[in-house]
Amino acid sequence: MEHLLSARARGARSSVIRELLRLTEQPGVLSLAGGLPAPELFPTERVRAAFETVLGARALQYAATEGAVELRAIAARRFPACTVDEVLVTTGSQQALDLIARCLLDPGDAVVVESPSYLGALQAFSAAGGRCVGIPGDADGLRVDVLADHLAAGLRPKLAYVVTDFANPSGATLSTERRRALATLSDRYGFVIVEDDPYGELRWAGRRPAPLRDMGSQVVSLGSASKVLVPGLRVGWMAAPSWLMGPLVRTKQAADLHTSTLSQLLVAELLRDDAAQRRHLERLRAEYGTRAAALHAVLPAGLVAERPDGGMFLWAHGEGIDTTALLPRAVDVGVAFVPGSAFFPQPDAASGEWMRLSYATLTVEGLAEAARRLGAAMEATPAGVG
Amino acid sequence: MEHLLSARARGARSSVIRELLRLTEQPGVLSLAGGLPAPELFPTERVRAAFETVLGARALQYAATEGAVELRAIAARRFPACTVDEVLVTTGSQQALDLIARCLLDPGDAVVVESPSYLGALQAFSAAGGRCVGIPGDADGLRVDVLADHLAAGLRPKLAYVVTDFANPSGATLSTERRRALATLSDRYGFVIVEDDPYGELRWAGRRPAPLRDMGSQVVSLGSASKVLVPGLRVGWMAAPSWLMGPLVRTKQAADLHTSTLSQLLVAELLRDDAAQRRHLERLRAEYGTRAAALHAVLPAGLVAERPDGGMFLWAHGEGIDTTALLPRAVDVGVAFVPGSAFFPQPDAASGEWMRLSYATLTVEGLAEAARRLGAAMEATPAGVG
Repeated sequence: MEHLLSARARGARSSVIRELLRLTEQPGVLSLAGGLPAPELFPTERVRAAFETVLGARALQYAATEGAVELRAIAARRFPACTVDEVLVTTGSQQALDLIARCLLDPGDAVVVESPSYLGALQAFSAAGGRCVGIPGDADGLRVDVLADHLAAGLRPKLAYVVTDFANPSGATLSTERRRALATLSDRYGFVIVEDDPYGELRWAGRRPAPLRDMGSQVVSLGSASKVLVPGLRVGWMAAPSWLMGPLVRTKQAADLHTSTLSQLLVAELLRDDAAQRRHLERLRAEYGTRAAALHAVLPAGLVAERPDGGMFLWAHGEGIDTTALLPRAVDVGVAFVPGSAFFPQPDAASGEWMRLSYATLTVEGLAEAARRLGAAMEATPAGVG
Repeated sequence: MEHLLSARARGARSSVIRELLRLTEQPGVLSLAGGLPAPELFPTERVRAAFETVLGARALQYAATEGAVELRAIAARRFPACTVDEVLVTTGSQQALDLIARCLLDPGDAVVVESPSYLGALQAFSAAGGRCVGIPGDADGLRVDVLADHLAAGLRPKLAYVVTDFANPSGATLSTERRRALATLSDRYGFVIVEDDPYGELRWAGRRPAPLRDMGSQVVSLGSASKVLVPGLRVGWMAAPSWLMGPLVRTKQAADLHTSTLSQLLVAELLRDDAAQRRHLERLRAEYGTRAAALHAVLPAGLVAERPDGGMFLWAHGEGIDTTALLPRAVDVGVAFVPGSAFFPQPDAASGEWMRLSYATLTVEGLAEAARRLGAAMEATPAGVG
């Protein structure tokens, strides 16, 4: 009956990486592969207290598609010059990407993404028929100068997607200068910028650049509870230009009516307490900073990565290493990571030399042992063969 | 910047009804318009106990797209001959409709719906580019004989959508004979049947027919916690043929990664306790049955409706009444309903004579007063004018 499938369903990539990652779920494997936050740092007791506060008929009843007004108000305050009317609550930031894709993309429309980029964004854009155009990035994020060349040569994207701070997977933060340049291009060529920033509050060194939102007129800003509170409630939010809000709300109404009311009220209650949330963020930063430094210090010979100032990932390069071929051997010796090719819209041989290492869920001791195993797998694997 | 919108976003109906229904939110209006369950019957204390049981890192962490295994197992047991592998947990049944639409429909593909049908289904099918073909229904549900004529004349739908028990808005239950006939047509002509059954357990009289699932080979069955527990957690589930599961899971992954883990574990914990859930359903049936009978007994002269054996709605017909024109006058005297034309894929003059009356959220006294006000509005409105 597969002939009944829509063109978009037939086109959906049956992710090779997803299959590979099933390997990593074997017992005894130390995983550097996940994008999960550390569960032992979840504010479980605060969630319990928030539940006692919000439990009641409203938390269990249908609600407006736009989202609970108190959560929208909190989200609006987190963005510069943002009103409650510009905020839509989403079922995680993944839904924000899906809604944006469905509202803006017709089949074949170009979407600018950093190469490498967040896999879930590539999936959402592709599912809507978008054509992801990868623009290289470096330590300061998307190479906006390269994008400018493409635009001058005739590229006309509907939108450009950037993870602004500690990007997944590269760990790079888009510099202030490049943010300004990107906003200028957006206004000149008439495309929407989607700035996704789940990791910006997880900064333990350096200074957080200003958001893109007040630099350009067509910016959609995404926020999420997943990395700064808990991901399992599936709560995110977006601030969008007013002409886009109506279509986004109507699309969300057809997609899931609204985000879990209980989840929304819990997140609003948790974020309402500024002091407690600040303490929680300080704890996350301290712990993730320690783990990042620990992993960086013990990286096996042959792997090179920037030492991060925040976020959850090391993006490591191994000259001459085929990381996709390395993964099964790594799992054999009890360690897992995500091969770099997963993150490139147009993978090539060079993209296969990268790997994403998450330090968020292992202890310092676990990270040392994981790095030791990774080194052993690399030694057992001749460079350039696989 | 509206020129950036996708064709599907430009085509999304800016629901006139939605705007009309904002009227009904005025204070002092007794609403027969909502599709909301009665909040005073929510099992709030059971939710509190379930929360204490499930709270922990797992309930707050990312989870598999397919859903929590214990909820999938419970859902599988609710369908005949269903394995856990065939079940996908969804963010409410609305998401199930959206995922099915995106996996099966290319622009212009025909979808058979009962006329009238659930508005959210029409929205999901239209958003995916589907062309809803309305087939009339009667007290036994979809006129499968009329569908057979259309199929014989060349109609080739990708799917047929039915709310099998106490349909929204008609209240009709599809007879066993028609279920068999529909399943036979599905297998002969090669289309998928989507059987949506959020109300089947809310039956206080008569006998529940067997589900379509074991009558045909290409049936997708939907279930939901919204009407039998609480809607605000946004938890539903679907059982699909195996060839459709992969595309559904991949589409859901791009749509929202997974449904709220906490919501899923709460619903699994609540449904796990068979005895408590049976008592809860008995209470819902008794209360809704009482309210249905009370409203039916006091319907204003000029309105005719079947007395329901279950569900949440009276579907009332007023010969010569334009219910869309009546609504603002009804709101003026403090009562609201949903005009029938909202539910018809191709509304005509006759569809404008219907209205949907929900008896779920008002007390018996409230229903009597609402009916009195509705009668007053009708008396003040000359038939056939508006």
